[in-house]
Amino acid sequence: MDKLTIPKPTLRRLPFYLNYLKALPKETRTISATAIAEALGQGEVQVRKDLSAASASGGRPKMGYTVSTLIADLEDALGCNDPKHAVLIGVGRLGGALLSFTAFARYGMYITAAFDNDPAKIGTTIGGTEIMDIARLGEVCRAQDIHIGILTTSPGPAQQLARQMTDAGILAIWNFSTAHLEVPEGIIVYDEDLAVSLAMISRALDAKLEAEAAQTTT
Amino acid sequence: MDKLTIPKPTLRRLPFYLNYLKALPKETRTISATAIAEALGQGEVQVRKDLSAASASGGRPKMGYTVSTLIADLEDALGCNDPKHAVLIGVGRLGGALLSFTAFARYGMYITAAFDNDPAKIGTTIGGTEIMDIARLGEVCRAQDIHIGILTTSPGPAQQLARQMTDAGILAIWNFSTAHLEVPEGIIVYDEDLAVSLAMISRALDAKLEAEAAQTTT
Repeated sequence: MDKLTIPKPTLRRLPFYLNYLKALPKETRTISATAIAEALGQGEVQVRKDLSAASASGGRPKMGYTVSTLIADLEDALGCNDPKHAVLIGVGRLGGALLSFTAFARYGMYITAAFDNDPAKIGTTIGGTEIMDIARLGEVCRAQDIHIGILTTSPGPAQQLARQMTDAGILAIWNFSTAHLEVPEGIIVYDEDLAVSLAMISRALDAKLEAEAAQTTT
Repeated sequence: MDKLTIPKPTLRRLPFYLNYLKALPKETRTISATAIAEALGQGEVQVRKDLSAASASGGRPKMGYTVSTLIADLEDALGCNDPKHAVLIGVGRLGGALLSFTAFARYGMYITAAFDNDPAKIGTTIGGTEIMDIARLGEVCRAQDIHIGILTTSPGPAQQLARQMTDAGILAIWNFSTAHLEVPEGIIVYDEDLAVSLAMISRALDAKLEAEAAQTTT
């Protein structure tokens, strides 16, 4: 079972199962997918699929899952046992929001350092993370072996900063700047365009209302 | 051509084409997909596919696209001509970041009002949007016919607020709270779990590095 292949929607539901399993009484040694589905008000097929994607050991017919093994498998799938570190560049409103966001740790993700060029911000901390001078980006990434960078600036300086990031050894950029980034071959760029996400929700609602209106007319 | 069916990656690239087309000299009456692809350093197949998904009129062989028609089609596909309004609930760091985010307007999306229960915030504005008492949610949504809500609170109050939102006529919730929301049937909930997104980027990088290491060993 390769945990890298777990689909995103499944991954998103795993903490939900994990919290439930951890809250079970100690004497519960085994549990079935059916029981979990019922307790959480989820479809049984989905729960069964999610658990088999995340747990290499698998449930046995009639017996179900061993609770302790399933907890360990879910924690492993979520990356809890293999913490990953990232840096954040650009401590504006969005950058500050991400720094104070506690949910990253649930997936073993930590923002280790943040960078800005504003002297008023440098040396302060948000959510326990120190904000450093952007000039120190390369030094910190190399010293701490960090290869993931979160870019939360406006579009203007984004391209130049992306260059600084890859020069500093960053191999994967989570790009909130909405700028199109030119990066060397092999660098992963994941564009997080929140405006597109909101537009997609609006379209999904339009489609649903149109379908309902069509049904009413016929 | 149904604009509701345009895939998200295509939608994300449309502003890029639109900006390019708008910057063309006035005397440019027609343009081919090939020319656009070359100018933007994009693959021709992708540009051709994106434009045909977004433009009902379509390009003609040898002739290409009429620039003014293509601009109008792209604006229409992006929703620029059909503005949509949303409300935001919970003006913490993330809520404040979204309120000051100017990119929503590129897709015809507007956050019309924001709500909080903190008297220190009520009556102030961020990014031109007024922050109102959460008690006024229903009144404002009904008066302005708003059916999209953005939930940017911590997980604790999320479920109760989701209830208040659907009572106020909200039909689609963009949920940043990381809480699992129970909503009446037919309500669209789009969970935006930023921690999952970062975990997925970390996994993609791991997979890439593992594949490269395997190639080096063999």
